[in-house]
Amino acid sequence: MARIVMKFGGTSVANLDRIRAVSAIVRREVDAGHSVAVVVSAMAGETNRLVGLCDEAGPPAPALDARYVEHDAIVATGEQITSGLLALVMQNLGYRARSWQGWQIPLKTNLAHGHARISSIEDESLGSAIDGGEVAIVAGFQGVGPGGRVATLGRGGSDTSAVALAAAINAERCDIYTDVDGVYTTDPRITKQARRIAKISYEEMLEMASVGAKVLQTRSVELAMAYRVPLRVLSSFDSPDAPGPGTLICDEDDIVEKNIVTAVTPDLNEASVTVLAVPDEPGRAAAIFTKLAEAGVNIDMIVQSASREAGFANTSFTTKENDLDRAVEALNAVKEKIGFKSLQSDRNVAKISVIGVGMKSHAGVASTMFQTLADKGINIQNISTSEIKISVLINSDAAEYAVRALHEAYGLDKAK
Amino acid sequence: MARIVMKFGGTSVANLDRIRAVSAIVRREVDAGHSVAVVVSAMAGETNRLVGLCDEAGPPAPALDARYVEHDAIVATGEQITSGLLALVMQNLGYRARSWQGWQIPLKTNLAHGHARISSIEDESLGSAIDGGEVAIVAGFQGVGPGGRVATLGRGGSDTSAVALAAAINAERCDIYTDVDGVYTTDPRITKQARRIAKISYEEMLEMASVGAKVLQTRSVELAMAYRVPLRVLSSFDSPDAPGPGTLICDEDDIVEKNIVTAVTPDLNEASVTVLAVPDEPGRAAAIFTKLAEAGVNIDMIVQSASREAGFANTSFTTKENDLDRAVEALNAVKEKIGFKSLQSDRNVAKISVIGVGMKSHAGVASTMFQTLADKGINIQNISTSEIKISVLINSDAAEYAVRALHEAYGLDKAK
Repeated sequence: MARIVMKFGGTSVANLDRIRAVSAIVRREVDAGHSVAVVVSAMAGETNRLVGLCDEAGPPAPALDARYVEHDAIVATGEQITSGLLALVMQNLGYRARSWQGWQIPLKTNLAHGHARISSIEDESLGSAIDGGEVAIVAGFQGVGPGGRVATLGRGGSDTSAVALAAAINAERCDIYTDVDGVYTTDPRITKQARRIAKISYEEMLEMASVGAKVLQTRSVELAMAYRVPLRVLSSFDSPDAPGPGTLICDEDDIVEKNIVTAVTPDLNEASVTVLAVPDEPGRAAAIFTKLAEAGVNIDMIVQSASREAGFANTSFTTKENDLDRAVEALNAVKEKIGFKSLQSDRNVAKISVIGVGMKSHAGVASTMFQTLADKGINIQNISTSEIKISVLINSDAAEYAVRALHEAYGLDKAK
Repeated sequence: MARIVMKFGGTSVANLDRIRAVSAIVRREVDAGHSVAVVVSAMAGETNRLVGLCDEAGPPAPALDARYVEHDAIVATGEQITSGLLALVMQNLGYRARSWQGWQIPLKTNLAHGHARISSIEDESLGSAIDGGEVAIVAGFQGVGPGGRVATLGRGGSDTSAVALAAAINAERCDIYTDVDGVYTTDPRITKQARRIAKISYEEMLEMASVGAKVLQTRSVELAMAYRVPLRVLSSFDSPDAPGPGTLICDEDDIVEKNIVTAVTPDLNEASVTVLAVPDEPGRAAAIFTKLAEAGVNIDMIVQSASREAGFANTSFTTKENDLDRAVEALNAVKEKIGFKSLQSDRNVAKISVIGVGMKSHAGVASTMFQTLADKGINIQNISTSEIKISVLINSDAAEYAVRALHEAYGLDKAK
């Protein structure tokens, strides 16, 4: 039978009752005859507790510092505990099961402790164990670095562990169990018309993750795309006997009926900065964005427009809200050098994106978006596009209104 | 300079403030130029929390069952966290330090998960690290079994880790830091006359540990004796700048002025059982104690005496209080087969032991004990002796009174 990887996040294993519920889902797959590897996160709240202990031990350490190695040794215990507990529960139900720590597989990483990248996974021992009928319960989020020390993959790393493991053992699919029953056409808290998406392409899922839809980490989707691992997003809160269909994330070619627009995704974690009256000379924009890069500020949408004063231009860009103060500080430090007049910043903005692989071959997606917003009296401050995404920046007060209007305009509220 | 091993128990590393206090003690030894390996327990309460999670995951698993392997993977995280935190604190103070898990040393054990025994310790990597000036912070209580799985050494195993490591790296001494400032002539809660013992032999310490003085685990003392590792018991609550002298546990030959009696040790965790009117025939005693052994009951003092009825004998023995119910149940199950009349059991007993290597060469120690108790009107129910120990069983109500009288009778209350 097929090898499959199942991954359960922190809320799915928050306590022993939840872990027992997870064991029922795992049993369903084992009983169906599959070779099963399960990847688990730390129990909800545990990673924060451990990070808190590290913080209490001293000031936050810079990455690659030796202190991050100890941070990893401490924080990785969260997943170690969950993997042991799920193995115990499975054993008590009469199943052969064992926990696997990163160093036991071994899942090897590079030296970037705290946000390590996977360099290789030894698939032989674990693969033959699961083919022999033993359930492998793998501690997610962790591996072992070149120095034989425990290394963690950074927040959300358990998704990455699961996908990388699925690629290494050539799994038929990787099922990501979470506290939602799939990926939605938009945030269901904004409109009840939001529908679960049955199939979505890796590319679309990547765009959604990058604009803040939090179902999956960007890295894990990138990895799944690179190794063509079919991913499913499922709820661990469904009855194990009647699981929902979830959302399949797969190759674009495996989706027969492509949507022009698959999802409308709001991102409220945006802020905009406008640099007013920059001398309109070569090199000024470069100076601005070099300075921001040096300050570690991530830049998203950039627009340059003419200033009222001749010989000057205005430059606007957006960044994440928590980068805003750093951006303003960095620019003010070079105000005289660059020669701009003043800065305006605005936290009261939202980025609304429409995403769909179908727009590659369909015209009119952008005009539908702009017309819909115009009809609702919503002003567009900024626009950016990719091959399968159009994003606009609007006042955040209008974000939900805009999402509902766009969701309807693209027919996403219609059952299919 | 010398290699030394320092061990800190759960109350010594109960929180970050305590861990910082420990770091000051470690720094003192490092600054003195020593090559230092530190062995740490889990933060007080953490092991119980983890064992509680295991218990919640399912019924207690028999030893050597696969489930104990998972138990070990879970419970060993406690020491992993402490070792990382102390390393972080040392690093923040500018010292080179790193944590070592059992599998990283590696400290290899046998397969007896939950109460594993150490089979070997690779001393090379850790030894050269500390000689190079890096402080090694070792997670106590754990090693790695033949199958590459984490194995724990059982409760109190961190003492054993420390002594075994000291033997492996040929340390000059092993300092056990705890919440008391040494080993006392008797329990200081019973008499204020109790004095700290400056030097005590391994043999005496073993006898004290075996009768319930809880400063050190029996196994760690046995190991120290076997490898002639000088042990010191010290308080981690002393100021790091003015440490107390503690108690040195060493070879008998290194103690110049031997005490006839070194300590008076009460053990209140005793219970006695009397099997009344056992037919006085060969094989009846064997039947009783075989049955008890099968039931896993540990037997201590045994006395056989004539019964009132001709042809019958009474057999008394003591056991630990928590073994009592099991003992009574086991014997009642074979009452007819063995042919005894009835059982009497008594939890209200205490064993008082006087311990001293000097009694090997001095007569009169026993008679002083019996006379002292007789003078106080305390009835002796049972007596057992070893080469360096005399134990009596008395009514537990008289235990403290007896300890104070004996402590004075042997002159232990006199400052030396």
